[in-house]
Formats: sequence, C-alpha cells, structure tokens
Amino acid sequence: MRVLITGGAGFLGSRLTRALLKRGTLRGADGQEHPIDRITVIDVTASDAIDPRVVPITGDLADPALVAAAVDADTSSIFHLAAIVSGMAEADFDIGMRVNIDASRVLLDICRQRGHCPRLVFTSSVAVYGGDVANGVDDRTALQPQSSYGMQKAVVELLISDYTRRGFIDGRVLRMPTISVRPGRPNAAASSFASGIVREPLNGEDAICPVSPETRLWLLSPDTAVECLLAGHDLASEALGGNRSVNMPGLSVSVAEMVAALERQAGPDVVRRIRWQRDPRIERIVASWPGSWDASRARALGFPGDASFDTIVRRYIDQMEEREPATSPRTPRA
Amino acid sequence: MRVLITGGAGFLGSRLTRALLKRGTLRGADGQEHPIDRITVIDVTASDAIDPRVVPITGDLADPALVAAAVDADTSSIFHLAAIVSGMAEADFDIGMRVNIDASRVLLDICRQRGHCPRLVFTSSVAVYGGDVANGVDDRTALQPQSSYGMQKAVVELLISDYTRRGFIDGRVLRMPTISVRPGRPNAAASSFASGIVREPLNGEDAICPVSPETRLWLLSPDTAVECLLAGHDLASEALGGNRSVNMPGLSVSVAEMVAALERQAGPDVVRRIRWQRDPRIERIVASWPGSWDASRARALGFPGDASFDTIVRRYIDQMEEREPATSPRTPRA
Repeated sequence: MRVLITGGAGFLGSRLTRALLKRGTLRGADGQEHPIDRITVIDVTASDAIDPRVVPITGDLADPALVAAAVDADTSSIFHLAAIVSGMAEADFDIGMRVNIDASRVLLDICRQRGHCPRLVFTSSVAVYGGDVANGVDDRTALQPQSSYGMQKAVVELLISDYTRRGFIDGRVLRMPTISVRPGRPNAAASSFASGIVREPLNGEDAICPVSPETRLWLLSPDTAVECLLAGHDLASEALGGNRSVNMPGLSVSVAEMVAALERQAGPDVVRRIRWQRDPRIERIVASWPGSWDASRARALGFPGDASFDTIVRRYIDQMEEREPATSPRTPRA
Repeated sequence: MRVLITGGAGFLGSRLTRALLKRGTLRGADGQEHPIDRITVIDVTASDAIDPRVVPITGDLADPALVAAAVDADTSSIFHLAAIVSGMAEADFDIGMRVNIDASRVLLDICRQRGHCPRLVFTSSVAVYGGDVANGVDDRTALQPQSSYGMQKAVVELLISDYTRRGFIDGRVLRMPTISVRPGRPNAAASSFASGIVREPLNGEDAICPVSPETRLWLLSPDTAVECLLAGHDLASEALGGNRSVNMPGLSVSVAEMVAALERQAGPDVVRRIRWQRDPRIERIVASWPGSWDASRARALGFPGDASFDTIVRRYIDQMEEREPATSPRTPRA
C-alpha cells in the first residue's frame, strides 16, 4: 500500500503517520491487510524523515504539478487532512478558498486523471452545521455552515460524494468533532480554546476561555481521532453506500464540565489558571456548531469514541509525562 | 436599476428579459420601485436586441474578463440562470464543472471585488436532493445530490450563502421544480420529457416517455417561474435571514396525471402520440429527485404557484395559438 497524507506535518497528520508506521498495514479493497510500503507526506512545512518509508514533500497543495508528482496509480490510500483552520479562513477569505476548496479540487482531479479510484479519507467538521441545531443533528440534517471554513468543508463533502458516485475515487468523509486536548501551541481555529483551557493550565500558564461555561462542545481526543481515520479507511465501500459523510462519535461536554474534569484530574490550583474573558467573534462561530449529534451511524459502522472527558484529560497528562519525564508538568511556573 | 442576466438568451432568461422590459421597474434595497435602465444579457449564444435597454454580450461566462466587463458597481441586480443542464453535466463532467461551478465563482468573485453587494438571484434545482426523499423534503433536509448537476447546484448554494453572510452579495437561491411545459425543442436535461410528452403531441409529433406513469414530478410553469424570479429579487433581504435557499412552490403530479390533464385539454388523439419506452439512465436521475416538497416557507414569503396541471396545459395551448395563429397546432401531422 502506498499512502499519501496531505497536511501530514500537522498535529493530526504526524500522529497518523506514526500510527500507520506502527501498524505497518492497511486494509485494501479486497478486504485484506497489506503492508505499507511508502507514506508520502505533503505539507507547507517540512516534516521529519522519521522512517525510511516516509517521503516528505514540501509545497503548496494547490499547485497541480506538486500534487501530480505525489499521486500516481500506485497511490492506494489518501488521507486529505490539509486545511486552513476556521479562524484563519474567516479572517482571510482568499487563503481559505485556495487551500480548503481549490487544493482539494486539484487533488480530486488528479485522482480522477489517474483513473485507479483510490480510497480517500477527508476530515470534515462540526462547522458544516449551523442555524437551528441547538437540539442536535443527525445524518439527514441540512448543512448550513455559518463560517467560511464550514462552507468550504461542506463544498468538498459534495465534491467527494459526486466523485465517488462517478467512480473517480472511493471517498469517505469523517465529520470530526472538535479535537481536544491538542498538544502544542494555540492556533487560529475558533475552537483553539477547547484545548488551551486544559493544556495551558497543565503547563503552568494562564489560559483565556472566550465562551461561557454553559457552552456545549462536541469533543474527540487526538488518539481516538487517529483511530477513526484508520477505521474510516478500512471500511468496505459498500458499508457506506451512497452517503459518504459520517458524523464521528464525540462527547457532548459543556465547558464547565471540561473544567470540572480538569480539576478532578489535576487539582484546583490548575483550574484557577483559566481566565474567563468572552470574545463575541469566537462565541458567534462556536455557538453555530451543534453541541452534540446523533452518531449512531458511526457506531454501527464501528468507529470508536472516548469514554469520558476525564479519560481524555488523564491520557493527555500521561502523554505529557511520557514526553517530558524529567519535569513535573503540573507544577505551575512562577 | 442595471440588471445582468446570465444565460439570458435561454428559455427562462429570454422570458425574464421580456417580463422585466414589460414591468419596467425592480424593487431596490430601499424597498422602492426603480426604473430599469439597462439589462445586460450574457450568453454563449447571441440574443436578439429586442429593446434599446438590452445590451447583449456573447461569450463564455467562465472568462473573468468577460464577466468583469459586464458587472460594474452600478449593476444592482443579477439573475444568474446560466447552467449546463443535468443530462449534459452527467455526460460531460468537465463542462458541467466549468460552467456550473467555475463560472459561478468568477461571477461571485467579481461582485465581491466590486464591493457594492448586488442582489443576486440564482436558480437552483430539485436535483440538489436525493437519497431517502420519497416522503418529501423540507428546508431542513440535507442535500444529497445524485447527479453531477445537482452537486454543482448545491456547491453554488453554499457559496452564495457564505458570500451573502460576508456581505459580498445579497444572494437569493430559488430551488426550482422541473419547468413544464417548455416550448421549443427537447434538450439534454434528464427532465426534458416532462415538457416533451405535452409539447410534441400538441405539435402532432410522437414523444417518448422514458419513465413509468407512476413517476411523480414537482412541476412549475414557465410563466410562474418568471414570476418567482421577480418575487425572489424583490424580497427584502431580512425576510430571508440566514437561510438564503427557498424551495419554490410546485405541483406534485404523476406522469399519469400529466397525461390525463393533456387528454382533458387536447383530446385522446393527442395523448396517443406518447410512446412509453423506459430509459434506465433517465429513470435513475429522476427517481433521485423528491416528487414534492414542503413549500410553506416560499408561500409565506409570497412566492406564487400554479393552480393545476390542467391550467398549465391550457395556458401552453393558448400561448401556442398566440405564437402561431394561422395554424392549428393540435392537428397531428401526417
């Protein structure tokens, strides 16, 4: 199996790369496991050559020549993760259109030209929903994105569905909940705080929470997100039928419940690092996302979920300690 | 008011042009009627200069230079009707993508560059629906197009919604039922038969019906379609709110009921001209469209509908006689 990961140097892409290397196989169209020979990783930033099987390509995914060089008729599996995040796509309309739509179309059209119908797993988002979704959504709810990022994801969902129907690709769209807890630094996603209010206090830093404690989020842990990507790839095409988009299983958690879980796992001093400072721009975007959705189709298809937000926080703390065994990450800095 | 009509030489565009000339005014953003100074008509085929107010432009709508020449900051109102029809978009994927998506994006981006937020009325289609829609659809039903044409219309709906939200345009999307009875010749639309089985027998010609008599269609007459376009333009933006797409009122009629109405209006000899010859390619596309939908929002917004298919057939016959008063159109040819 030859694999392509777009946005492969990013947070989810690099975890997926490591998971694929560790597993060593992927399921093919014949339903059997096949060894992974090569993982081509495209990103705007260089990725580390962590294994001889990994081929990094640095460049612009909207450049057809670059994508043509990365996809050949032996590319059996594509994980299309590259995206401009929600806050940036809202602030800079052109770059969002270029990366989130135009680059996706370049990729899809090169797959079509190659003519070998590769499996393509695309990460969509809770942001495709909007409008009157306070009471939750299911697979039959209309997409009414209230952000340019959500619109761009919804457009690519439609393209993938039709390219699949026509036999150009074998597409699978995973609508991802907000991923929490992401390691690293804050990013320009409107949902960045959903990791920051856990991660920064655990690092002994203050975090700003820009939404009210009652705000309800639909969350998935990074490890489970990677497991979902692998499960989405390995599904038989017939299991999805004509509806290629699946709402991934998440946890419906209020910000207050997230903070309570953090306090249970790390103590009251840590949660005192959270400063409540509402930001109407972020509140407006986050409030347009459903706080939960019906994930029964995903569960029936075998996608995994998380047990509780306590479990997610606990696992994040354990992984911090694995990364930095010499320091005590929960000790606040001066 | 300066008006632009894309696809203006087509069947609906030329009727709309005549209706605008006859009415002489359109409602502006101030809620008042203003005289129409100019109607620019873009189409790939030349349109007749039927009035000094009409400025025809012949060319490719996907050419940014052509569209830039047609849209300036005085263009108050755009009716974007140009499209590759469903059958052709299915047969030739590239031309459908180019005209139905790329040209729409060129138009939207030039409006955005101009910065004056024109009203833009876009004709979408029943073909954006699909999947499990046998029991009808409403404004909250997910779009699951089962044809490339439907996918392309759904993509442009998403673009228009976001361009409107961002203040680049004031967009209104009218989801059109199948238009029947169209005059003229058959076209490459999968729904072409929905006019042909009435029009050809009335012209004394045989018509092929490629679907079963039980097939249920959602129909709108050409005259009412033009009235809907004008009503969609004249609506106050606030009346639509965040959901810019409205399912137009139609008639839910089975093919058998259409034929019965034709027989009542034109006699049994005429309906004997219909040959029943099923075409799986057309049946598959037409069966993916809902045979009816909840049009209560459109009615509440003041969009007009047709009284019955008998009325539609009667009006078509009257208009035939106006066009060709010297001949008897219902006399079968040898």
